[in-house]
Amino acid sequence: MLIEMGKEARQAFRILSLVSTERKDAALAVLAERLEAESVPILAANAQDVAEGQKAGLSTALLDRLTLNPSRLAGIASELRQTISLPDPVGEKFDETTLPNGLKLHKQRVPLGVLGVIYEARPNVTVDIASLALKSGNAVILRGGSETLRTNRALVTLIHSVLAEAGLPPEAVQFIDSPDRSLVLELLKLHEYVDIIIPRGGASLHQFCRENSQIPVITGGTGICHIYVDESANLEAALPLIRNAKTQRPSVCNSLDTLLVHSAVAEAFLPRVVEFLAKDGVTFRADSLALDALKTLNPTLGDLVIPAGAEDFDTEWMSLVLGLNVVEGLDEAIAHTNKHSLGHSDSILTADAGNAARWVNEVDSAAVYVNASTRFTDGNQFGLGAEVAISTQRLHARGPMGLRELTTYKWVAVGNYHIRQ
Amino acid sequence: MLIEMGKEARQAFRILSLVSTERKDAALAVLAERLEAESVPILAANAQDVAEGQKAGLSTALLDRLTLNPSRLAGIASELRQTISLPDPVGEKFDETTLPNGLKLHKQRVPLGVLGVIYEARPNVTVDIASLALKSGNAVILRGGSETLRTNRALVTLIHSVLAEAGLPPEAVQFIDSPDRSLVLELLKLHEYVDIIIPRGGASLHQFCRENSQIPVITGGTGICHIYVDESANLEAALPLIRNAKTQRPSVCNSLDTLLVHSAVAEAFLPRVVEFLAKDGVTFRADSLALDALKTLNPTLGDLVIPAGAEDFDTEWMSLVLGLNVVEGLDEAIAHTNKHSLGHSDSILTADAGNAARWVNEVDSAAVYVNASTRFTDGNQFGLGAEVAISTQRLHARGPMGLRELTTYKWVAVGNYHIRQ
Repeated sequence: MLIEMGKEARQAFRILSLVSTERKDAALAVLAERLEAESVPILAANAQDVAEGQKAGLSTALLDRLTLNPSRLAGIASELRQTISLPDPVGEKFDETTLPNGLKLHKQRVPLGVLGVIYEARPNVTVDIASLALKSGNAVILRGGSETLRTNRALVTLIHSVLAEAGLPPEAVQFIDSPDRSLVLELLKLHEYVDIIIPRGGASLHQFCRENSQIPVITGGTGICHIYVDESANLEAALPLIRNAKTQRPSVCNSLDTLLVHSAVAEAFLPRVVEFLAKDGVTFRADSLALDALKTLNPTLGDLVIPAGAEDFDTEWMSLVLGLNVVEGLDEAIAHTNKHSLGHSDSILTADAGNAARWVNEVDSAAVYVNASTRFTDGNQFGLGAEVAISTQRLHARGPMGLRELTTYKWVAVGNYHIRQ
Repeated sequence: MLIEMGKEARQAFRILSLVSTERKDAALAVLAERLEAESVPILAANAQDVAEGQKAGLSTALLDRLTLNPSRLAGIASELRQTISLPDPVGEKFDETTLPNGLKLHKQRVPLGVLGVIYEARPNVTVDIASLALKSGNAVILRGGSETLRTNRALVTLIHSVLAEAGLPPEAVQFIDSPDRSLVLELLKLHEYVDIIIPRGGASLHQFCRENSQIPVITGGTGICHIYVDESANLEAALPLIRNAKTQRPSVCNSLDTLLVHSAVAEAFLPRVVEFLAKDGVTFRADSLALDALKTLNPTLGDLVIPAGAEDFDTEWMSLVLGLNVVEGLDEAIAHTNKHSLGHSDSILTADAGNAARWVNEVDSAAVYVNASTRFTDGNQFGLGAEVAISTQRLHARGPMGLRELTTYKWVAVGNYHIRQ
């Protein structure tokens, strides 16, 4: 069944890959408008999804994530308008050169092709991904969560209508309109038609895709993020930075999981960290040296700080828990980070340029920071606009993937009846 | 068993990723020298491989491919010296920017990590791949063909000795020293330690890797290549160009498989093509319009031109066979090419700039040519130096993959205790 979808998507991609930026942007602008003007069927479908979710006993948090209302639709439309305002990467020429034999060579940026995106609850992802795909000339096969099937169906119906009216192929946005899980497996085998699989969800979804896909998978979306407070760090400035990294949005992948502190400043700094962050509800898992450094606080600690367990430094907390680890210096901080990080975002706070350079070079993560919060690893923050994913694998793209990361290139060689010698 | 190899390779990669260009080049220079100076054990091992191959009844062509002699070793050493002379991509900074909030951002080029390379008979690949990997700071797990096990073992022993003496980790070059096929499957599952799988071999090896790998696979190495002779082509200049593309090395992936000819020039041109290439032993598979265009030659054709069968335009000939197809014009030429090409290399011969532009934009192959032979798709020809593979998939790299294509990037953000708002 999905083979037909794959074929249609591939054909639509060929057409879309040649469409001008102006035409793509115009269609997306109509979509933004109609998302708000024609919200009735979308909100009705969403209300059904929410009602079914309530019956099925979904958590309040999950129900909230899948709920749409006029203001959330306006937010989706506003993000779409941001995507429209971004430059179109397709057609960019780069690495131009003339070979010694006179053959003119350059690379030309082209869409990746057909994206397979597998995602969970939030219905805004449907519009985000479809619009990023369309803007960059790609076709996409969407597989959303079963909880939002009706909402996604209504959104895709609107997208199809907009594309058709704009004279663009509606087949560029394919939608797997069934909760049948075997279809995910089928999608992962469609290597003849699909160029990249982007899972957006938990670790088990990523693992399932990696284990079963015959198409390259962009894994990511998880992070065990570190901040290392070096001996020379500005401890005063470090406190609000650490609070930002830990508490601004603890459930996302660029939030702080483990604080590494140089032993020379541990006794001075760690009690302040605990007192400062406890106000925001943070609790701590400390290694034995960190516990030692906190001994002045001991009588008042209660359950605030507990000894770190064997797995704690390999845990992405997604909550207001923070690991505390005292290290002898930069070598140990780098070794700890490279061992426990998932390669997402790791930061050093230091006044020492040499230590900063070593951190940047030796910590092997998608984003390495000096004197900044890990929270910046994000397409919008990095100036790429909306992102389709944050990659923690090494091929093709690392970190936030925006429009340009949805493209590849072709080599173009222009000669004068050149023959290879 | 391979897990240990993976762990060792990963650790070695971390060390190697920080080694200066000078030290890497110096080690490779010693390797080039010792390949020639210490050829005795290598040639002895190779003689054993060849003797076993003869016993096993390998074809003369295969035996020739696996045979080493002093002059071939000198050739390998000379290629290695070329790799030394190439710029080291690691450490390159690009996309530098300062965000509105003052956070300084750039990308920094870093090695891919650990490469898994699965290849067949020719022992020069062992040195080629190992040297490209080392120069670009990567570790590599090599899985060569069973026919060259002894030769590869001797080569890897030498590489290890050179690395150890240079103070570099010998574990950076791992060698699967067993013909056991189940180890390939094991390698394909090592996603915790291996970042990319590069198969170098036939279509079945690529398929096996794609179907079984939990690591992204760079598929490639096959091509059904087209040249389209447009109405306005310089037919005189086209003849030697087509001969070059077809006959210079018919067994490689960038050689010509199908000649498309505009119907307006078919009668004038196709008989000349047949006469011109027949001298080199080329035979032809022609569609019905091409047969019509050849009717003036009919009495003399014999077995030189036979009607094309159903599969002929989907065949990579790897031999002196050429498909002939007459098309009504550019649209049909592009449609035929996108349908039958494997996305490797396709060329238009034309004097019409508009048609050339359409070919470049609409033919969806790794390398698209205007007025040049498809034979140029090659790392050395494109000025990249030696290549690790020619990719026909779309992720990460398309076409020839040299040193730079063996790298990825990290984001580096430097702030002044920046906090996300």
